[in-house]
Amino acid sequence: MVIADIAVMPLIPSVSEEELYKQVDAAIDYIKNSGLKYEIGAMSTTVEGEYDEVFELIKKVHRIPFEAGSERVITVVRIDEKKGGLIIDDKLKNYKNHRKNQ
Amino acid sequence: MVIADIAVMPLIPSVSEEELYKQVDAAIDYIKNSGLKYEIGAMSTTVEGEYDEVFELIKKVHRIPFEAGSERVITVVRIDEKKGGLIIDDKLKNYKNHRKNQ
Amino acid sequence: MVIADIAVMPLIPSVSEEELYKQVDAAIDYIKNSGLKYEIGAMSTTVEGEYDEVFELIKKVHRIPFEAGSERVITVVRIDEKKGGLIIDDKLKNYKNHRKNQ
Amino acid sequence: MVIADIAVMPLIPSVSEEELYKQVDAAIDYIKNSGLKYEIGAMSTTVEGEYDEVFELIKKVHRIPFEAGSERVITVVRIDEKKGGLIIDDKLKNYKNHRKNQ
Repeated sequence: MVIADIAVMPLIPSVSEEELYKQVDAAIDYIKNSGLKYEIGAMSTTVEGEYDEVFELIKKVHRIPFEAGSERVITVVRIDEKKGGLIIDDKLKNYKNHRKNQ
Repeated sequence: MVIADIAVMPLIPSVSEEELYKQVDAAIDYIKNSGLKYEIGAMSTTVEGEYDEVFELIKKVHRIPFEAGSERVITVVRIDEKKGGLIIDDKLKNYKNHRKNQ
Repeated sequence: MVIADIAVMPLIPSVSEEELYKQVDAAIDYIKNSGLKYEIGAMSTTVEGEYDEVFELIKKVHRIPFEAGSERVITVVRIDEKKGGLIIDDKLKNYKNHRKNQ
Repeated sequence: MVIADIAVMPLIPSVSEEELYKQVDAAIDYIKNSGLKYEIGAMSTTVEGEYDEVFELIKKVHRIPFEAGSERVITVVRIDEKKGGLIIDDKLKNYKNHRKNQ
């Protein structure tokens, strides 16, 4: 298993914030329906899965805003892989007592 | 208010995972004690604050691993700013019904 | 000295590519006039300077698109620092024989 | 055609700078031999190619440091796509007169 976080940024044409969020929402919905484990953050969505399926997902998600009317999209992806496998819970458990009000 | 997510990556010398997490933990502890609102994710920590205080924090956090023994650090930062202000809750509320099991 | 690469992305309102490039150009012009050493790439601009001056520059550059009419800007920054100092030429000299047609 | 920039960061075990650069060099060599157009920068390498081949390349490059002995790798990728296609020269030509000493 690998972890990746994905931030899809539709650049053109974005007349209003509503439009921008609509395109980003379409991308998040796609991730939601992918079957992969995910965590939505304010700046990106993190997923966990097998290497091939995570890349398949990234390839699809980046293109979702085009289907929703965008003409220019920049996607930022960070892939974190560890020999032997890595899951979101392993990374977060180190920080458990760092979480505010949880 | 602006939002920023910060990922501090100590590169050298990192002999073991324990050492790596120790240095990253020191950076997260610094954020925790900053007084700014934060959210810890598997790939980065997101903070919210006034422009100057967010930059002051980033400048400090990037250097924490050096104090913990690192000799090379790459930090990735994404700053999201909106005319009139932007907070984490505003961004996340759009995605509320996208969160799995919440 | 530290190295940082900066990618300024104006998101709203971006009706046309011309408008988008105009705002990004304004940001690059600001870097050009900063006095810091820089390299412009297709995806970001890399600068080299003292820690404080690099951060001062990032703080200014991120806000340039707002002056050019943008209402929402995401800036991605990567800071690379090495104990004892790091300059662009040191990093690139390792790759000298990797450059195509040079 | 799409543009992507790739930064491969081997995290563990990295005892020395030489080791780190050796692993990053192996990744850059792989890109060099891929047949895709590329530009090496101080913080990342930018490539240009068809969507599928760029993703195939990213999938391979991220894993090169493991073959060179790494046990943990974080790769940061930014994909820039425009309806109708986008090439490195198109993006850079806007900035031609911004380049110092060229």
